[in-house]
Amino acid sequence: MTNIIKVGIVGYGNLGRGVESAIRQNQDMELVAIFTRRNPESVTAGTRMVAISEIESYKGKIDVLILCGGSATDLPVQGPELAKLFHTVDSFDTHARIPEYFAQIDEVATAAGNISVISTGWDPGLFSLSRLLGEAILPEGNEYTFWGKGVSQGHSDAIRRVQGVKNGIQYTIPREEAVDLVRSGSNPELTTRQKHLRECYVVLEDGANREAVAEEIRNMPNYFADYDTVVNFISEDTLRAEHGTMPHGGNVIRSGITGTGNKQIVEFSLKLGSNPEFTASVLVAYARAAYRLAQAGQQGARTVFDIPFGLLSPKSPEELRKALL
Amino acid sequence: MTNIIKVGIVGYGNLGRGVESAIRQNQDMELVAIFTRRNPESVTAGTRMVAISEIESYKGKIDVLILCGGSATDLPVQGPELAKLFHTVDSFDTHARIPEYFAQIDEVATAAGNISVISTGWDPGLFSLSRLLGEAILPEGNEYTFWGKGVSQGHSDAIRRVQGVKNGIQYTIPREEAVDLVRSGSNPELTTRQKHLRECYVVLEDGANREAVAEEIRNMPNYFADYDTVVNFISEDTLRAEHGTMPHGGNVIRSGITGTGNKQIVEFSLKLGSNPEFTASVLVAYARAAYRLAQAGQQGARTVFDIPFGLLSPKSPEELRKALL
Repeated sequence: MTNIIKVGIVGYGNLGRGVESAIRQNQDMELVAIFTRRNPESVTAGTRMVAISEIESYKGKIDVLILCGGSATDLPVQGPELAKLFHTVDSFDTHARIPEYFAQIDEVATAAGNISVISTGWDPGLFSLSRLLGEAILPEGNEYTFWGKGVSQGHSDAIRRVQGVKNGIQYTIPREEAVDLVRSGSNPELTTRQKHLRECYVVLEDGANREAVAEEIRNMPNYFADYDTVVNFISEDTLRAEHGTMPHGGNVIRSGITGTGNKQIVEFSLKLGSNPEFTASVLVAYARAAYRLAQAGQQGARTVFDIPFGLLSPKSPEELRKALL
Repeated sequence: MTNIIKVGIVGYGNLGRGVESAIRQNQDMELVAIFTRRNPESVTAGTRMVAISEIESYKGKIDVLILCGGSATDLPVQGPELAKLFHTVDSFDTHARIPEYFAQIDEVATAAGNISVISTGWDPGLFSLSRLLGEAILPEGNEYTFWGKGVSQGHSDAIRRVQGVKNGIQYTIPREEAVDLVRSGSNPELTTRQKHLRECYVVLEDGANREAVAEEIRNMPNYFADYDTVVNFISEDTLRAEHGTMPHGGNVIRSGITGTGNKQIVEFSLKLGSNPEFTASVLVAYARAAYRLAQAGQQGARTVFDIPFGLLSPKSPEELRKALL
C-alpha cells in the first residue's frame, strides 16, 4: 500500500456527496475537508465542512482537490483559481469549450507546479476514451454514441421554462432498433430522430392548458423538434416519488472493417443506477492518478487521453501485470 | 501529420498477414519488410519478404518491429533477441508467464535503449484494460469475463489428439442466460459450466467409433469435463467450407455498487469477424505508441497499462481534445 492520499472536495451537491461516498470505498484515500459556499454549519454531513473562503489555509494539507461544481458558472472560475493552489481533478463537460478551458488551466497549473486533470467522468471521460480507442484500432469504420436511458438536465430545464409548467423531468432514451442495427455491423446512417426518443414527465400549474404545453414542448427547436417526444402529465407527488433517482448510461460503438471486409464491433456501455455517484467514482480514480503524476514531478493540465490506466489503480505495476493482464 | 512510421513484421501466419493489412489502413505507417523463417521466395505476398537471418541489417531502417510469432515457442526466444535490436510490439499471451517475460524483455530493452510493448491484443490487452478500469472505478464489485463465440486453438488441438479424430474445431460459447444475469447487476456466483458452453465439430477417421470419440472428448479433464460439451460430426469438406473464418469476441463486465447501494454496470464487448485481424489492428495501434515513446527517449518494457490512449491515435493531443473529448 502506498501513502494515504489526502483529498478535499469543493462543492457539496449530488456530485460532491458522491465523491464523499466514493472516498470511503478506497482505502488508500482520506477525506480532509469539504469546502462549501454555504454556511458550513448549516450543512449536515458526516465530515467536517469548511467555508470556501478558508481554502488557502489547507495548502500542504491536501494532496488532491476534487472540484464538484457545475461547468456553466462554477468551474470556469474555480478551476483556474484553485489550480494555482492545489493539484485538481474536475468534470468540466462543456464539450465545445474544453480546448479553451484546457489552455487556461494548463497555464495556471504549470506556473504553480501543479497537476490538473480536467474533464473526467463518463462523457467527457470514459466515453471519450472509447471513441479514441475505437478509431485508433479500426480506422476504417463509424462511431455511434447512444445516451440513456437517463435524465438530461438541460432538457429538464428547458421543459421547466415553458409557460404553465410547474415542474418536470426529461429522459433521453436510445432506440433499441437503432442500437441493434449498429451492433449488426451494417454501418447505418441514422438521423437524430432514429437514434433517441425523448420522454417528458410534466407537472402543470393550476389551470394550465395541457395540449398547449405538450405542443410547445414537442416543437421546441434544438431541444425537442428533431425528436419523437412523448409528454406525460403527472402530479408533483408522483414526480417526487418516482423520478428522484438519477439513472443514466449509454453505449459507444465502433463498427469497423479489417482485411478483405471482416466486420469488427467494439462496444463500451454503461448502465448506471446513479449518474452522479458513478461520475464521482471516476473523479476519485483520476484523483489517484493526479496524485501519482504530481509525485513524479509532473505539472500542467491533463485529460483522460494523457493518463495510463495503471495510474488509476491502487495496485502496483507488478501486481497489475500479475493479476489483471 | 507526423513522420511516416517504418514498420517491420516478423512471422507471416494469420497474425502477420493481419498486420500487413492493418498497416495499409493507417496512412502514417509504411511496411518495410516481412521477415520469415521460410525461404522468402516461396512466400507469395504483396510486399517484399526477407529471410529472418538478414534482420540485423535492417537496424536503422525500421522504427518498430511487430512480432507475430506464437507465445509457446516463438516469442520466448524472439522477444528478447529482437528487443536488443529494435523497438518491438508483441502479443505474448501466456498469462501465467507474463511477469517473467516482462522482466526479461525489460532488462534487454533497457540495456539496448529500446522500447518493447508486450502482451497487446485483446486478451491480454483491451480486456485487461477493461478489468483494470472496472475495479479502479468500482472497487466494491465483481468482474466477469465471457469469451466467444469463437474458436479456441488449445481446445481444437485437444480434440485433434483424440484417437479416431482426423480433424476438428472447437467453439467457446458464452451462455446468454449467464451474461444477462450479470448485466442485471445481481452479482451471481457462476460455475465454469454456467458461464460457457463448448461446441465441437469433428471429422472422424474412417472406421472410427462415433460414440467412443464423443465420450472421450466430453470427459477430457481440464478441457471439457467441467463444461456442457456438444460434439457434432461433419465431413472434411464441411469443415473447410463452414469453419474457415475466425470469429471471436467476448465481454468484460464490472458489476459494482456505489453510495447506499446503487448498481453500476460497466461493460466492454467485442464482436470480431476475424480474431487475428483484430489482434493485428491492436498491435499496429500500439506500434504507433511504441514509436512515440521511443521518440520521447523512453526505454524498457511496457504493457497496455503503462500507455496513455492518446499515443495510440495519429491525431495530435489538440485535435483529440477538440474532436473526441
